[in-house]
Amino acid sequence: MRVITLLTDFGTRDAYVGAMKGAILNVSPSVAIVDICHDVPPRDILAGAFLLGGAYASFPPETVHVAVVDPGVGTRRRAVLLVTPSAFFLAPDNGLLSFVLGDIRGRPLRTRAAFGSPRRVIVPRGCAAYALTEPRYWRHPVSSTFHGRDIFAPVAGHLSQGMQPDAFGHPVSTLACLSFPPLGRQPDGAIQGHVLYVDRFGNLVTDLRPSDLPGRDVTVDVAGRRIRGVRRTYAEATGLVAIAGSAGYLEVALRDGDAARTLGAHVGDLVTVRRA
Amino acid sequence: MRVITLLTDFGTRDAYVGAMKGAILNVSPSVAIVDICHDVPPRDILAGAFLLGGAYASFPPETVHVAVVDPGVGTRRRAVLLVTPSAFFLAPDNGLLSFVLGDIRGRPLRTRAAFGSPRRVIVPRGCAAYALTEPRYWRHPVSSTFHGRDIFAPVAGHLSQGMQPDAFGHPVSTLACLSFPPLGRQPDGAIQGHVLYVDRFGNLVTDLRPSDLPGRDVTVDVAGRRIRGVRRTYAEATGLVAIAGSAGYLEVALRDGDAARTLGAHVGDLVTVRRA
Amino acid sequence: MRVITLLTDFGTRDAYVGAMKGAILNVSPSVAIVDICHDVPPRDILAGAFLLGGAYASFPPETVHVAVVDPGVGTRRRAVLLVTPSAFFLAPDNGLLSFVLGDIRGRPLRTRAAFGSPRRVIVPRGCAAYALTEPRYWRHPVSSTFHGRDIFAPVAGHLSQGMQPDAFGHPVSTLACLSFPPLGRQPDGAIQGHVLYVDRFGNLVTDLRPSDLPGRDVTVDVAGRRIRGVRRTYAEATGLVAIAGSAGYLEVALRDGDAARTLGAHVGDLVTVRRA
Repeated sequence: MRVITLLTDFGTRDAYVGAMKGAILNVSPSVAIVDICHDVPPRDILAGAFLLGGAYASFPPETVHVAVVDPGVGTRRRAVLLVTPSAFFLAPDNGLLSFVLGDIRGRPLRTRAAFGSPRRVIVPRGCAAYALTEPRYWRHPVSSTFHGRDIFAPVAGHLSQGMQPDAFGHPVSTLACLSFPPLGRQPDGAIQGHVLYVDRFGNLVTDLRPSDLPGRDVTVDVAGRRIRGVRRTYAEATGLVAIAGSAGYLEVALRDGDAARTLGAHVGDLVTVRRA
Repeated sequence: MRVITLLTDFGTRDAYVGAMKGAILNVSPSVAIVDICHDVPPRDILAGAFLLGGAYASFPPETVHVAVVDPGVGTRRRAVLLVTPSAFFLAPDNGLLSFVLGDIRGRPLRTRAAFGSPRRVIVPRGCAAYALTEPRYWRHPVSSTFHGRDIFAPVAGHLSQGMQPDAFGHPVSTLACLSFPPLGRQPDGAIQGHVLYVDRFGNLVTDLRPSDLPGRDVTVDVAGRRIRGVRRTYAEATGLVAIAGSAGYLEVALRDGDAARTLGAHVGDLVTVRRA
Repeated sequence: MRVITLLTDFGTRDAYVGAMKGAILNVSPSVAIVDICHDVPPRDILAGAFLLGGAYASFPPETVHVAVVDPGVGTRRRAVLLVTPSAFFLAPDNGLLSFVLGDIRGRPLRTRAAFGSPRRVIVPRGCAAYALTEPRYWRHPVSSTFHGRDIFAPVAGHLSQGMQPDAFGHPVSTLACLSFPPLGRQPDGAIQGHVLYVDRFGNLVTDLRPSDLPGRDVTVDVAGRRIRGVRRTYAEATGLVAIAGSAGYLEVALRDGDAARTLGAHVGDLVTVRRA
């Protein structure tokens, strides 16, 4: 049995997610539906992309991941299916698949464009992508504001039943991918990244990989504060702590507190690491 | 395999929903349980009824829908099972099934009673309703404050296993249904409805159907503001936009913002549409 | 098919819960995963323990309950498996299993220690406990901050497939258990307990069982207010009401309102009951 995951900015206050699940089960009555997250901040494609990137890899092969953060719903923005060697992804073509693409490419997309702005990248080798253009597999009538229920959900249902990807539309050669500035490298050897995401604990997830750092004996500067050393666990330090986080990035946390609120730190803020 | 859906005002902070799911699985170990929504505002029967109404229709035939927003739990208010040609509904008999009943009747109940107050309606033709009075299918001891776990959940479990509806209690001929004022029709041809629901995006869902309107070239007045035209997508306009929403009603949204907060609009507010 | 339940303080804003579910399904693709609660306040072991205690008993036999509120993750705190006659429990060894242990022991742990502080208790007769020390059943590499995904989830998956509990590590003879002060008994016959938990409705759940009380014709003093009598339902009274709650404890609620906010009451506050 295949699994379908859902990630949206629909929240849990309304019945939008429930309606999507109904539309999936209507097509594929015995598929397992798993929520990744529905509390992506409204229209926040970067947060959605990051969260999908942090969860998909733990799922079984051939899982169908549906991601809907879709401020352009009903416009000409494409809805796409990305087929990778390990999974299927359904999403609007607006950058939501950026971290999935980054994993496949082995690195995030880094250009001089503004932090988190979308660029187009070639579909990676070994993968295929399709525009969802075949209305036969949609739920009708199709609402112009709720493609989650009327397009993505039924297509996911059919995919979970083994339908071939090319049944859903024509192949496409590029996908939208959010771009981040290159890591800064300063004359004194310091390396400079950014806050990529703030989680519910107020932990700051950066775009620096532990392998980017000059060891663990470093200082980490963020939001005007300096932290010494990179720890293994939250409990090892008091106050602010830099840590190699579970998503594979350097994180800044406040033991028993909320680092983002305490520091006044936000997504996009600079993070500078230098040898101590 | 049948599906059981849950809609409650229990929230997600406590273990009430988990306990209900346990009680269902205890009776019906392999049924699929799907959450429609648990963040109905506490005791808000109208919001619960609206949300159930917006989600149930996308589920497979014979789905068992359990809705518990139940300020009168433990009193003489009845617990009921409504059997329609397409699904089963379990709920307190307090108006939670209003939009389901409205769909079957082809129109919402409109009387001169106050906005959203409950009236009794005859069980529609082709449907049957039962009072849940047979304790054999309950979980014991029955708490006087948690019928969700002790009555609705086990009954849903038995229903999902194919037990006949009349096993759970005696037939009833009427059900509570929330009533809304008739749509106002003014001398100048304007039509007047109400805000029915505010979703997490701050979108105002009205009780006006697109078919109620004199076309798309209209003005929409709400909370002292006027909007011109009815759009297909959120992205088509800047600022406030009127749109034919995914639930089948006219909605008012604020592109990239929260219309309800910006307008100070609330459930029950008047919405007036006139030819532009 | 066995069921796996999840209770965490991971919230629903991030993808942590989704990642855990993926890691479970990767091991045990057709297990049913049920959320008990993910909105335990961050690092609040008492709330997590209470919520687990209120939900587990309604699940089918052999359910695998996974509870992760784990401020000491990555330190030497043990991860444990508790096997009871009716279920399996996976959790950090920090007190999260207190109410499960209390149910088995027939009473909560009461000592002169501070309200809610952890003590060690002997694993109850008829039960067995194991430290999770066998890395063969973990997900690798193991993050030092996310044992939910990398240790608890895969172990739960293996357990759900019938693997023997002693495969996961060596037996342990004691477990952490939160301790509460003995119920106070005053010269005038009054009995004194505490607020144990505040739910989303603002209801105050106390650590007094209805059987602790000298009948229903009592007064209940909490946060400077006196309530007369113990009711069966919320609807029976106006204003503040004392009630025998669904979790088996005396509760204080405010009809159509939030008792905790109105009273300014908190976990740990004294509750005094005396014959009226």
